[in-house]
Amino acid sequence: MTFPLNTWYVACSADELGDKPLGRTICNQAIVFYRAGEGQVAALEDFCPHRGAPLSLGKVCDGKLVCGYHGLEMGCDGKTVAMPGQRVRGFPAIRSYPVQERYGFIWIWPGDPQQADAATIPTLEWHDNAEWAYGGGLYHVKADYRLMVDNLMDLTHETYVHASSIGQPEIDETPCKTTVDGDTVRTSRFMENITAPPFWKAALRGNHLADDVPVDRWQICRFTPPSHVMIEVGVAHAGHGGYDAPAEHKVYSVVVDFITPETDTSMWYFWGMARKFKPEDAELTAQIREGQGKIFAEDLQMLERQQRNILAHPERRLLSLNIDAGGVQSRRIISRIVAAEQAAAAGAPA
Amino acid sequence: MTFPLNTWYVACSADELGDKPLGRTICNQAIVFYRAGEGQVAALEDFCPHRGAPLSLGKVCDGKLVCGYHGLEMGCDGKTVAMPGQRVRGFPAIRSYPVQERYGFIWIWPGDPQQADAATIPTLEWHDNAEWAYGGGLYHVKADYRLMVDNLMDLTHETYVHASSIGQPEIDETPCKTTVDGDTVRTSRFMENITAPPFWKAALRGNHLADDVPVDRWQICRFTPPSHVMIEVGVAHAGHGGYDAPAEHKVYSVVVDFITPETDTSMWYFWGMARKFKPEDAELTAQIREGQGKIFAEDLQMLERQQRNILAHPERRLLSLNIDAGGVQSRRIISRIVAAEQAAAAGAPA
Amino acid sequence: MTFPLNTWYVACSADELGDKPLGRTICNQAIVFYRAGEGQVAALEDFCPHRGAPLSLGKVCDGKLVCGYHGLEMGCDGKTVAMPGQRVRGFPAIRSYPVQERYGFIWIWPGDPQQADAATIPTLEWHDNAEWAYGGGLYHVKADYRLMVDNLMDLTHETYVHASSIGQPEIDETPCKTTVDGDTVRTSRFMENITAPPFWKAALRGNHLADDVPVDRWQICRFTPPSHVMIEVGVAHAGHGGYDAPAEHKVYSVVVDFITPETDTSMWYFWGMARKFKPEDAELTAQIREGQGKIFAEDLQMLERQQRNILAHPERRLLSLNIDAGGVQSRRIISRIVAAEQAAAAGAPA
Repeated sequence: MTFPLNTWYVACSADELGDKPLGRTICNQAIVFYRAGEGQVAALEDFCPHRGAPLSLGKVCDGKLVCGYHGLEMGCDGKTVAMPGQRVRGFPAIRSYPVQERYGFIWIWPGDPQQADAATIPTLEWHDNAEWAYGGGLYHVKADYRLMVDNLMDLTHETYVHASSIGQPEIDETPCKTTVDGDTVRTSRFMENITAPPFWKAALRGNHLADDVPVDRWQICRFTPPSHVMIEVGVAHAGHGGYDAPAEHKVYSVVVDFITPETDTSMWYFWGMARKFKPEDAELTAQIREGQGKIFAEDLQMLERQQRNILAHPERRLLSLNIDAGGVQSRRIISRIVAAEQAAAAGAPA
Repeated sequence: MTFPLNTWYVACSADELGDKPLGRTICNQAIVFYRAGEGQVAALEDFCPHRGAPLSLGKVCDGKLVCGYHGLEMGCDGKTVAMPGQRVRGFPAIRSYPVQERYGFIWIWPGDPQQADAATIPTLEWHDNAEWAYGGGLYHVKADYRLMVDNLMDLTHETYVHASSIGQPEIDETPCKTTVDGDTVRTSRFMENITAPPFWKAALRGNHLADDVPVDRWQICRFTPPSHVMIEVGVAHAGHGGYDAPAEHKVYSVVVDFITPETDTSMWYFWGMARKFKPEDAELTAQIREGQGKIFAEDLQMLERQQRNILAHPERRLLSLNIDAGGVQSRRIISRIVAAEQAAAAGAPA
Repeated sequence: MTFPLNTWYVACSADELGDKPLGRTICNQAIVFYRAGEGQVAALEDFCPHRGAPLSLGKVCDGKLVCGYHGLEMGCDGKTVAMPGQRVRGFPAIRSYPVQERYGFIWIWPGDPQQADAATIPTLEWHDNAEWAYGGGLYHVKADYRLMVDNLMDLTHETYVHASSIGQPEIDETPCKTTVDGDTVRTSRFMENITAPPFWKAALRGNHLADDVPVDRWQICRFTPPSHVMIEVGVAHAGHGGYDAPAEHKVYSVVVDFITPETDTSMWYFWGMARKFKPEDAELTAQIREGQGKIFAEDLQMLERQQRNILAHPERRLLSLNIDAGGVQSRRIISRIVAAEQAAAAGAPA
């Protein structure tokens, strides 16, 4: 097992889940999601106990999931409610998953339901907050989800992968600093008195700030388990305090990354950006979303080909340089959690 | 082995086999079919004994199959007839299959040729019969052929899969009855005084019958080995005797299904409809064929996804409800035949 | 192992390798090729020692290969030259391959670098020779490279596979002669007083020779290890000496085939034609290239399907007829070389 199970993952955005059921594999498990009525979301094995048809090909009627093959009605607890002409009491139950809708996402707990605690879903302060705006998207990537954690915890790759938008040589040239605090890993880099790259010039203009003056730029990556990476990013006109500059001199955002394993070598990558300036400007939100989508798409081929290379050479040890410290520390935390889960599952004290 | 071998399967429609050879895998065996002259059809291993080229890429000259690579001429008994500049007497023979053209189909016997008896090809009374018209088609489906037998022997799925054409709630609400007579399984359902669903309304209109009056509707599914399912279907204006109503009050057809295993998890599905009304109306034949093709295509995704679910959970037992009795009994007969073939092959009394 | 390693293969045409690196798998090894400056070509494992990214997704700066992920600069000896902010002395080296640019191709030695000797690259007299013109192309074929050797060393297949261009019954009817001289296999066929097939009629017209008179035609195939096949082909107006006829009575070319294993069951097939008439006519070169490309494409499906048939029946022995002698002898030489390499690798005297 390469991923924790007793934790909350983002399964889909709230927008993805409409009137119809949604089938999605998460942590190697085929799962169907649907709206069970009155704001309640349900998640079940995507397997009809009658003949094995995928329930996600069915429909939702009055909050019940109806199998599209023979009309079996499934309850959100995994027990069959009814089936035309049948007594269903003896039907085997299918697995039901703890699931929560929060902050515009559907969150799933793929492990032991007894341990699921909605209070441990991370708080996203920017959601439903008039001071903030958010836009994002989803990519399916054929690579181990930890390769994306590595990617996001080492932003030196921006210089090369995203040379025309957010990359610039100063990222490479400025040392980063990685610290670990419990299960949180923080990698930060502060660049002073530099030229803003194209993406940030556009953001400055969007915020009615000059884009042709020197800026201070910062990147503060925060990993928390299982695989969430929040990155504070921004630029301020130089000489106003950088990260701590007053709002009128800077452009500031949080890059939001929820990375959900699909299988051992594929992932659902939910990306987005929350910003604290001009939150009412929907057109700006759309522009940023489009720009970010293009930038993040540049990583996909690299990660998928990296995955294939690693699978072809399983015996090779990769390097762990100082720039890799964020990823290395994050993987260490993941490994510790997975080992504890396995020890607990084996009956030994974790 | 999941399918009998000492039996006749439909390999292709007669129309599919023209001047050129046709390559098709049946029961895990790559086979080439061609017209060997004077109405004779031949079926051979699709493997040239010279260098292993597929003979189906060759051509037919004067009833002989000529390999498209180096010109080896193959006889319909699997023995090489000639090859430019070569003495072919010592060439190894390839396997030749018993094959018959009958009722507009090419039938193949993939098992022991000694046991092949053309008299056991089922009789299709509607072929070349002026009172009947026939139209049909072929789908390739990536699922165990028995999932299609299940599908056709339990028509409650029509309510869900084919809701806009032939499905209606009364199918679900009306109990079906399954009987077994030797190797034949019969599942029937009779619905009285109901509204005709769209497909049947169109058929009534096509036959100059009112489509807005109550009808009696029937479905009588008949399975015979290895995997033929004939379904008598029809509607009659209510009050005229239903299934037994005189011809002028009803619309009556036979759904024709020949299901041929390609591999353990894929099939060739020959579907069609033979009707006993307005047989001379070629346009109506084309209309019905198009409508039926669309309806049957609705099953394909369900079966292919069901197959994937079953492969992912090989340990799970599926339910066998009363509505499944037709499929269950049909599978039981298939299993018995397969077991007998295997026992015979092992030298034990069957 | 089905192919020699201590030998030169064509990796790509010189035209394929421009400013950007080129990734290509050869003999089961993923390799990146690039121009390291001043006419020097380099070939390395396509695996960045930092995090396993494919170096072929990077770029070339001042002759150094720069990884597209985090900017590692790789030298053409497989040792890391530099990386922003890093000391690279301890970085593990990646494999570097002997590589040569010659005759419009990039040649690679996938085996022991110590044994690489550029003097053993075959001489291509027609390159950069004003008396000759050359045109060619590349096909990727999903088949064992030896199936292409068989194909080219037995041209009877032209009668069937290329019936509309270069095939004619006289090929089949005329015996061929195969001789072995050291590691060279030669299969020749001389046809006298025949009608030229369409391809050669066009070549005669292109050379201002009558195309409606009888001709003598010849095919002389020469295999040399590892898998080069050069075929002298041509026609002369009959009665002038055939192969030895003076230039003004004949059309004469060399079919050039370099066959490079990609994996055990796929290959890169470099094909072309060098001709000794009207070398200055670029339009004729383009015409011949287009015609040859179409003809050679006809072989691909046959070889790929033959490969699938052989994989499905690994136990079957194929026939080795007199027409197959060229391929059989060539494979014998290949096997001997492979066995010698393996014996040497095992420490035994070869």
